[in-house]
Amino acid sequence: MPEPIRKSPLFPIVNPGSIVFFGASNRFTAMGTNQLHSLISSGYDGRIYPIHPIEKCVLKLAAYQSVDQLPEVPDLAVLVLPTHIVPQVMEECGQKGIKHAIVVSGGFKEVGGEGVELEKKLLTIASQYGMRFLGPNCLGVANPHHNFNVTFLPFEGRPGYIGLASQSGSLITQLFGYLDRYGLGFSSGISVGNEANLDVVDCMVHLADCPHTRVIGLYLETIRRGREFIDTARSIVPHKPIVAFYVGGSEAGKRAGLSHTGALAGPDPLYEGVFRQSGIIRAHSIPELFDFCWVLGACPQARGNRVLVQTHSGGPGAAAADASSRAGLELPRLTRKTLARLAQMVPHTGSLNNPVDVTFSKNPQDFFDGIPDALLGDAGADGLLAYLLAPTKSIRRSMIGMGFADEEIPRLVENLFDDHGKAMAGLIEKHRKPLIGFTFQNPQDLGIKKLLQYGVPVLPSPERAARAMAALVRYSCILDKRRIPSVK
Amino acid sequence: MPEPIRKSPLFPIVNPGSIVFFGASNRFTAMGTNQLHSLISSGYDGRIYPIHPIEKCVLKLAAYQSVDQLPEVPDLAVLVLPTHIVPQVMEECGQKGIKHAIVVSGGFKEVGGEGVELEKKLLTIASQYGMRFLGPNCLGVANPHHNFNVTFLPFEGRPGYIGLASQSGSLITQLFGYLDRYGLGFSSGISVGNEANLDVVDCMVHLADCPHTRVIGLYLETIRRGREFIDTARSIVPHKPIVAFYVGGSEAGKRAGLSHTGALAGPDPLYEGVFRQSGIIRAHSIPELFDFCWVLGACPQARGNRVLVQTHSGGPGAAAADASSRAGLELPRLTRKTLARLAQMVPHTGSLNNPVDVTFSKNPQDFFDGIPDALLGDAGADGLLAYLLAPTKSIRRSMIGMGFADEEIPRLVENLFDDHGKAMAGLIEKHRKPLIGFTFQNPQDLGIKKLLQYGVPVLPSPERAARAMAALVRYSCILDKRRIPSVK
Repeated sequence: MPEPIRKSPLFPIVNPGSIVFFGASNRFTAMGTNQLHSLISSGYDGRIYPIHPIEKCVLKLAAYQSVDQLPEVPDLAVLVLPTHIVPQVMEECGQKGIKHAIVVSGGFKEVGGEGVELEKKLLTIASQYGMRFLGPNCLGVANPHHNFNVTFLPFEGRPGYIGLASQSGSLITQLFGYLDRYGLGFSSGISVGNEANLDVVDCMVHLADCPHTRVIGLYLETIRRGREFIDTARSIVPHKPIVAFYVGGSEAGKRAGLSHTGALAGPDPLYEGVFRQSGIIRAHSIPELFDFCWVLGACPQARGNRVLVQTHSGGPGAAAADASSRAGLELPRLTRKTLARLAQMVPHTGSLNNPVDVTFSKNPQDFFDGIPDALLGDAGADGLLAYLLAPTKSIRRSMIGMGFADEEIPRLVENLFDDHGKAMAGLIEKHRKPLIGFTFQNPQDLGIKKLLQYGVPVLPSPERAARAMAALVRYSCILDKRRIPSVK
Repeated sequence: MPEPIRKSPLFPIVNPGSIVFFGASNRFTAMGTNQLHSLISSGYDGRIYPIHPIEKCVLKLAAYQSVDQLPEVPDLAVLVLPTHIVPQVMEECGQKGIKHAIVVSGGFKEVGGEGVELEKKLLTIASQYGMRFLGPNCLGVANPHHNFNVTFLPFEGRPGYIGLASQSGSLITQLFGYLDRYGLGFSSGISVGNEANLDVVDCMVHLADCPHTRVIGLYLETIRRGREFIDTARSIVPHKPIVAFYVGGSEAGKRAGLSHTGALAGPDPLYEGVFRQSGIIRAHSIPELFDFCWVLGACPQARGNRVLVQTHSGGPGAAAADASSRAGLELPRLTRKTLARLAQMVPHTGSLNNPVDVTFSKNPQDFFDGIPDALLGDAGADGLLAYLLAPTKSIRRSMIGMGFADEEIPRLVENLFDDHGKAMAGLIEKHRKPLIGFTFQNPQDLGIKKLLQYGVPVLPSPERAARAMAALVRYSCILDKRRIPSVK
């Protein structure tokens, strides 16, 4: 790890070498037990010390009755305890010399009344002992690069490049599987809860320095330190893109946030302004937050907003063109040179307008190689949206028709898809222009899976692909201080 | 089949008892071969007569050299032939007495020039022999209720209740798998191509009478008969909802449609007006077209626009509330009676505002039964959006923790999910109010799959669920001639 990140107060919280765990037992009806189990089953190889008043062993780990009995001062305390005993345990941790904590317990500021006082008390204790903590009312952290998952759901997935700071904790855990389906993963996922001590701004600083993080995602219900938020984001964005989803814009969204993390959301245009000033790219739904993070981490920069659409099916191609246009992208005509190159590959029933609709092609390989090569090579194009279809069933049928033996076919299909993936990934490398695929197929279908494995982003609809391309363009404009094309 | 639909000129095209097929060979590089193979492999049990100049057998079916040699007059001719010989073959079909055809071949009006003339010629021949036909430049029809799929991709999926008329042909074939993943399917999917003879209006009339079709979906790049379109839709909508996705609204969308099916798209506001006048619900993306069809076919009517959100995860709940509010839905407070019922089931860290955020619940069964029962029973609520999470891995973990034997667990998990599915489906039945679930899980995950199998719609994001609920409300308003809540 490079030097700056080791100084981040979040570093020991996200990469702890040892952990004391409060609130786990051997009963799986308790949330803490689930969280400790997640930690163990994620393959974490640091030391774990469960604290339990009675049990000698918790989930097969030696348990201690109190924190002062521990043989070392752990890097991190995790508290999943009833609200009223949290301050006392924090104090005991402070006395032991522990400097970092995750307070999972809820019942603080977000419930009002006495909870507000209890949260203040936590802050006083932390300040007294020089402690930094996440929460309360958060769901912990997942850092798959460190085999560290202290959320309540078992980790499914892989290490990735999306660094997420989230005012919804369970969102992190519930997206493990979602991201994994697309071959994506978190670098770190940090649940900030009520942000009493460490907040989203601290997370941004940490993730900016994190070498595993290529793009920072924010799930926001409020911004508590406006000025610092803007200044911090502005300093990060030239080096690493930030994408935010803000949920508090509507009346109902505001009320939901208030009950959820005690956040007082502001009016939508105010937040729109904050994002613009900060150079943050705004997403308008949870899936879009991850779509944007995906392509920003996977694609070269877009030099401009002129995009070509490649398809062999009129509808998805037209939908991509329409959505691109609405998202502020331009759809130029092809240059003469490109037209000449394509003439050999596209049948007369196809169209060489933009979208390029090759219809039924005699050499399917061209669709994944020669045609996108010509299109990405077009001097007037800054990026390519490609409708991708790789249906195993019909390819198998063709191979049977061509006389291949049944037992050969699975390997042949796999090789074919492998070639597609390699070819398309190679074209991104060669042209240094973004290529975003889209499909209605399952990302688990072999043909799509291979493309994903080679690093080609394949989004689940033409509209999402087009909006993701527009996000890339927006980031380039921010970097170059160019005018951002307006959305129609 | 009831009487009216038998009179539809589309009936023999969608339910043929016998077919003559032009353009298939034994080579799978030919599109026609793929289409004939699709037809055979779909389990179609009518008679099929391939026509081939040389081969005696095509895909193991006895082939004929010309249509006049056939032992009967088939219900339907399918033409997948080079453009220039299509008129002659149509004429031969006419002479044989065939009254219905699907002209798959392209190269007509959509390419301009000579193609326009060739299309006129087709029309003259059809009129001379009293023939009705789909296309040219279409991709055929799939009617899974009749084991009939004459598109170029093998059928994967199931019979369903969505009747689709599409100006993009391949869209139909490429959504077989997409719909199947959500437990959905087409009643019939009809590709209209250039609409030289039969058009979208004819399809609407046909699908309105089709007993398998609960909701009509339209993929549109243009409307060729405006007055008839509006009048027909207006007459259907009181009995069956119609959802349309229009792709021609932007400049780029317009150009794409023109190359695709020779369609001259109109400005977006004009189409918006047409849809409003017609009582058609407009979708803004291809996935949304099917989301809306899904819930309109699966849910009881919404009596009003007051919706409750149930969650155990703050983020997805807040996102659903925010998106609902933006889509014109109201999020009322719970009644006293509901609050009292919920108090026993929701822990103190939860929130009984709307969204109802139960957080971590001690009895997970309540989440699929008692809690949604209370919420759907709320006198001030017209519908429920429920965030659903059924993670096999963590449930298995809990069961191991509870001491169940390894070999018992798969069955126990299956039973549990089965109970969830039954319970939620039962609540829709009991309350006759719409319940729309949403999740980030894979629809193939057992817990979600079971819900889908029992007929609970579970959409893939909070935003899509909220917009789908708004579509239900919109349809109810159209039926009741109430004012439609405006989108913010």
